[in-house]
Amino acid sequence: MALPQDAPPARYLDDMKTGLRFAGKARVVREREIIAFARQFDPQPFHIDTSLADQTLFGGLIASGWHTAAMTMRLLLEAFPIGEGTIGLGSEVTWPNPVRANDSIHIEGEVSAVKPSRSHDDRGIVTVRAETKNQNGEVVQAMTANLLVFRRKSKSV
Amino acid sequence: MALPQDAPPARYLDDMKTGLRFAGKARVVREREIIAFARQFDPQPFHIDTSLADQTLFGGLIASGWHTAAMTMRLLLEAFPIGEGTIGLGSEVTWPNPVRANDSIHIEGEVSAVKPSRSHDDRGIVTVRAETKNQNGEVVQAMTANLLVFRRKSKSV
Repeated sequence: MALPQDAPPARYLDDMKTGLRFAGKARVVREREIIAFARQFDPQPFHIDTSLADQTLFGGLIASGWHTAAMTMRLLLEAFPIGEGTIGLGSEVTWPNPVRANDSIHIEGEVSAVKPSRSHDDRGIVTVRAETKNQNGEVVQAMTANLLVFRRKSKSV
Repeated sequence: MALPQDAPPARYLDDMKTGLRFAGKARVVREREIIAFARQFDPQPFHIDTSLADQTLFGGLIASGWHTAAMTMRLLLEAFPIGEGTIGLGSEVTWPNPVRANDSIHIEGEVSAVKPSRSHDDRGIVTVRAETKNQNGEVVQAMTANLLVFRRKSKSV
């Protein structure tokens, strides 16, 4: 479960600039993962039952949007590691297309804002916009996330 | 993994009104659940390692925000079932306070907007605002979600 050893170097607030871009490797999503996640958190027919899912407006099994969000978090950690951790304060997500079994998804993103804290010299809020795309280039999740990011040498954490 | 039998009746677009409120039962979040989710989707020290977590700014193990979001989805399904399924188009979430091991969380929410579709008579978009709170009444997640909701007797799904 450890992150890959060939991950890019972790970035700190000092390194963040509007327009800084990143992209990650693809990962394949398996049917059993879709069903396992949904049984626990989102047990609806179109997420947990392949036969029933065929009869819904989705025409087949699709991943819970929250599963897509969770997988995207993993992709974000691997593609854009942040020093002292990727700490989300909040996020806006849309799911324009569903993730289906055996889709291969990856993340592409950029820093859209950097706001140093007024009250704490050692930190700031970095806004990241990221799209999660499937093997056909279709966006399965568009996200704007606000992250708490520390400066290098911070002793607060 | 089935939803409880004493769930409230499913609502359709016909039943939705701005100001309609709902609330659900509490569920306890266990340390092993926090760690299992984070190992899979968000393997950072403050989510997966109790000893290391003590040394972070959180002062102990906390759940991934995406875990809180996923658990909230389950709470939403139980507290506010929707006919033909709870289909999220997108969501805005903030995490004002972390979820910690053995916290007991529940959901409270209301319908904040109902917009019938212009192009499809059988459906509309319902906006739901929901807070997930812990046993002390602290908000661990505030969410605004846009849901695709069908009218009763719809044959589209």
